[in-house]
Amino acid sequence: MQIKEFISIRQEKHLKELFEFLRFPSVSTDPKYKQGILDCANFLHNELSRLGCNKVEVLDTPGHPIVYAERILDSSFPTVLVYGHYDVQPAKVSDGWDTDPFEPVIKDDKIFARGAADDKGQVWLQLKALEYFNEFSANDLKVNLKFLYEGEEESGSENLDNFIIQNKQMLECDVVLISDTSIIANNVPSISVSKRGLASLEVEVIGPNRDVHSGIYGGVLANPIVVLSQIIAECRNANGQVTIPGFYDNVQNYSTEQRAVFKQAHDLMTSYKDLAKDMKLSKTVSELGFTGYESTSIRPTFEVNGMWGGYMDTGVKTIIPHKATAKVTMRLVENQNPQRILDLAKKHILSLDSQGCTVNVVFGDAAQAYSNSLDSNLYKAGELAMQNTFGVKPIPTLDGGSIPVGESFKRIMGKETLFLGFGLEEDNIHSPNESFGIFNFNKGIETIIEFLKIVSNKGLDIAS
Amino acid sequence: MQIKEFISIRQEKHLKELFEFLRFPSVSTDPKYKQGILDCANFLHNELSRLGCNKVEVLDTPGHPIVYAERILDSSFPTVLVYGHYDVQPAKVSDGWDTDPFEPVIKDDKIFARGAADDKGQVWLQLKALEYFNEFSANDLKVNLKFLYEGEEESGSENLDNFIIQNKQMLECDVVLISDTSIIANNVPSISVSKRGLASLEVEVIGPNRDVHSGIYGGVLANPIVVLSQIIAECRNANGQVTIPGFYDNVQNYSTEQRAVFKQAHDLMTSYKDLAKDMKLSKTVSELGFTGYESTSIRPTFEVNGMWGGYMDTGVKTIIPHKATAKVTMRLVENQNPQRILDLAKKHILSLDSQGCTVNVVFGDAAQAYSNSLDSNLYKAGELAMQNTFGVKPIPTLDGGSIPVGESFKRIMGKETLFLGFGLEEDNIHSPNESFGIFNFNKGIETIIEFLKIVSNKGLDIAS
Repeated sequence: MQIKEFISIRQEKHLKELFEFLRFPSVSTDPKYKQGILDCANFLHNELSRLGCNKVEVLDTPGHPIVYAERILDSSFPTVLVYGHYDVQPAKVSDGWDTDPFEPVIKDDKIFARGAADDKGQVWLQLKALEYFNEFSANDLKVNLKFLYEGEEESGSENLDNFIIQNKQMLECDVVLISDTSIIANNVPSISVSKRGLASLEVEVIGPNRDVHSGIYGGVLANPIVVLSQIIAECRNANGQVTIPGFYDNVQNYSTEQRAVFKQAHDLMTSYKDLAKDMKLSKTVSELGFTGYESTSIRPTFEVNGMWGGYMDTGVKTIIPHKATAKVTMRLVENQNPQRILDLAKKHILSLDSQGCTVNVVFGDAAQAYSNSLDSNLYKAGELAMQNTFGVKPIPTLDGGSIPVGESFKRIMGKETLFLGFGLEEDNIHSPNESFGIFNFNKGIETIIEFLKIVSNKGLDIAS
Repeated sequence: MQIKEFISIRQEKHLKELFEFLRFPSVSTDPKYKQGILDCANFLHNELSRLGCNKVEVLDTPGHPIVYAERILDSSFPTVLVYGHYDVQPAKVSDGWDTDPFEPVIKDDKIFARGAADDKGQVWLQLKALEYFNEFSANDLKVNLKFLYEGEEESGSENLDNFIIQNKQMLECDVVLISDTSIIANNVPSISVSKRGLASLEVEVIGPNRDVHSGIYGGVLANPIVVLSQIIAECRNANGQVTIPGFYDNVQNYSTEQRAVFKQAHDLMTSYKDLAKDMKLSKTVSELGFTGYESTSIRPTFEVNGMWGGYMDTGVKTIIPHKATAKVTMRLVENQNPQRILDLAKKHILSLDSQGCTVNVVFGDAAQAYSNSLDSNLYKAGELAMQNTFGVKPIPTLDGGSIPVGESFKRIMGKETLFLGFGLEEDNIHSPNESFGIFNFNKGIETIIEFLKIVSNKGLDIAS
């Protein structure tokens, strides 16, 4: 059977199965959905068994289980480790959903449900690609497959790194494939080739040894909240630049040609046009001299994720507070070393006038930026697969977010990841009315089949 | 009997009574001490009855009761409304007390107990002054007395303004007398003649309509915490000055002679010397060109009492938060109109770059600074009383705090308050090991007797 015929004839069956998958309320951030998580993991386990995997397990972690499966055909074949996640973001009708988030419906050729695009729909299209080979084209698949489906991606993948470290041998592979990203538009396919890194720290400003009366002492004692605000203000300027000395030292400058490509991508991404309206802001911002797309991908940032100090209840309490704290994360780009950036940030913060207060800087998570080379066989395989199915060559895109799992596979196992995803920015992932286009679901099956065929032909060269 | 003889012979009795008063755990901020509050109010009620008041009541408020009493002798006499409070700050041995805060002890000629100086000791010396006249000098007292003893001063006097408004006629008087302040030193008597005013507001910066992913959006959306930090930083400068345009317009400039007196007062106040060490700070601060004393009295301030936004729990959450909020209070000096200051602050805050966010400024409490004229008969009576008992003329001092009750009596009833207090800065009010010198207690009785004699001689001229 031809691939297109398979997808067309089986569509009703595929959607029926996916709907079953989507109905599990596998919300990982809320303990009351624990049963939904377990039921969903078992459902996935059964599907992987049905698809002929020779090893299928639901493996415990200190958090939610990982569903793991293997379909090893021949040790001379390349091995692709497929990663995805079966957990979803929280969702309640009262958040603004038009329909029950855990009762999928189709409207305007889109599947509406929590997890439709992130990531259940994209997990399911990977499995349907395997089903195609199983039933109609077994001899064409010369690839060993390993599947790692996580249940904690939406709650921070807290146990994934340890799982990879402890099961390095079991997970041994040539390359990693993840379908958890978006394309620019249905006629503009794209492949995400970089993710920004991350460096996090906490700044604590300790003032008087207790909350003191702001009347008696206001004027002679520094106010830790004011000092912290001044520190934060001294880390960013009005041009959207980070003012930590040395922060931009190793940031890559792109050529005029490359900048032109980024400009084109920016203009193609409809999301930037409506962003301010969608977020109820009067305008968006960006770093001086860079487009929104560049500001969220090739440029590093300094963000305060949380800040608190003093009296936070109703009414007035006239105190100079004992202390104030801010949580900071910086998004990093290629060549920025997270540890060096943390050191620079700390040095800068401690160089500012503390006005008699004690300033403590404590480092948190750090991850190097991650990127694929456009010259790698892995990227070229993905590019060719998309070109064959979409009819146009995909654009390599740079993502602002840090999907740490790509960085984890690189750091722990030394393996490259291909982010071959099929969502759209309009899919409302993490928001009410999440959706996934049926076009995208079908095109995903087709592209994954195509990709696996190309890998089958290339053999072990794929990883080089 | 001479006054000094009365004080000396009765000292043991006076302290025994005061100890009984101090043993009530009348903590107003914690509901579990409600019985301690009620028992203390009844104790005070009984004492006022014993002292011959012709109307003594424990009056309910929505919070803790007010103990009210009148001792009206003749309608042609001036009426002095005496204010004090019988509630105290919280205190536990584990906070660092050397002895039980509610079991008074005498050490180094000081009474150690919660409330010793603030304000039970000073309430009791007022009552002992009345006792002196009752027993030994009835004909010399040509003053009507009204007593208003509050049970919520330490929890913000939430119901006092309404009580005054509703009982304006009952409280009708010529002047108000409060003993709840300090003198510079036992050989440097002083009278507090001004309290700073207050203007409070809340600033809310609303960014994206929900918490969003700082990787995907970091670089194109303003961060409300950063915007708020920049706003706060734009309200103060490195010289300790407030940078709101027009903020200092009506702030009084003092003559070289006056500044010399303030300098003298600053140098006499030992508290400034050890302040940094006491508060575990590397240094104190002050407004450029002003001493610590001036910075906390004749200069206005801008303080953030509380600030919060985003993720405030353990670990890292990579969000650009939906919003951030800060609670601000400004201490004001004479001639600064609180409403005008609030308007100026709002105008300034709204003029700053919100980077696409919505900035809301909501006004809270406001109170005009309060001060006595040094030429008033009331101040002169207090000055003379102290000069007669301490042997030196008291220094008029300016206080940083806003005891709103003085402003309330002025605003609601049009009456001046004399702050005739006898504590010392070293008394540790609001802190562990609160104390009150026996010298100060006795000198307080003597000075209040003296003051009432002077008022008796001046008659109704006292208020002019």
